[in-house]
Amino acid sequence: MSVTDELLANNARYVETFTGPLPLPPAKRLAVVACMDARLNVYAILGLNEGEAHVIRNAGGVVTQDEIRSLAISQRLLGTEEIILIHHTDCGMLTFTDDAFKDSVQEDTGIRPPWAAEAFADLDTDVRQSIARIQADPFVVHKDRIRGFVFDVATGKLNEVH
Amino acid sequence: MSVTDELLANNARYVETFTGPLPLPPAKRLAVVACMDARLNVYAILGLNEGEAHVIRNAGGVVTQDEIRSLAISQRLLGTEEIILIHHTDCGMLTFTDDAFKDSVQEDTGIRPPWAAEAFADLDTDVRQSIARIQADPFVVHKDRIRGFVFDVATGKLNEVH
Repeated sequence: MSVTDELLANNARYVETFTGPLPLPPAKRLAVVACMDARLNVYAILGLNEGEAHVIRNAGGVVTQDEIRSLAISQRLLGTEEIILIHHTDCGMLTFTDDAFKDSVQEDTGIRPPWAAEAFADLDTDVRQSIARIQADPFVVHKDRIRGFVFDVATGKLNEVH
Repeated sequence: MSVTDELLANNARYVETFTGPLPLPPAKRLAVVACMDARLNVYAILGLNEGEAHVIRNAGGVVTQDEIRSLAISQRLLGTEEIILIHHTDCGMLTFTDDAFKDSVQEDTGIRPPWAAEAFADLDTDVRQSIARIQADPFVVHKDRIRGFVFDVATGKLNEVH
């Protein structure tokens, strides 16, 4: 049995107690941008319930063009107005550089990725970088309530980046 | 009190019962790509525990360059080998077209987004499109275990796309 088959059996149990459907627009008018890291259960970390916030996630929790796309749709079509960014300690993105990653991919495939890997050397600095990218973007509407955090994978605590 | 402040109070309670840290690489060697929709609590839907799978999310659960970046890092640096894609019923991406969205943004800001909004008219077709984009990409390594689903927001069930 593949992992996917095992998780589909979990889903069959989830269906038994499921109550829905909830409305489409996020009830708390919030969008969260977080790292894809497996240890970040965003709903649990923030005490979010289903239906309350958009959750956008990628390698690093960084803001690239696709997060701008998602945030623009979230705010313009679905009414969110507040943004939380979450990076975390012990992040994989701290363990390599863009150049080294691209060298390695080029060696393996013969093709150098035309995109940035978005590795970073400092968590707080990259949270600020992500916020700065949103602030500089012309398509995201609401920018007055954006706050960034580093989740501590050892304690579960969100530490704010100032 | 802002929504963020309210959620930080939830996080203080989360810390009280937190047990960590878990290892960095996802224990189930799985990456999930899902829509950012607030009703999709991916951990609950799949019965995932913290530390088991990367979770990548955006508007639509579509595969664009940034999801390729995340999947390439997930597989090449952190050992995942299996991919689950999740779109869902009642998705916001079904309610507009790229042209209409761009017209509206251009009218509001004076600037037409240079990126695709990635709206779609059919869920199953777009799940297949996202899988096809991964299959065609030179940087994602493991492509033999990719499965796509549509989550039913009325029942909680994952229905597989073939």
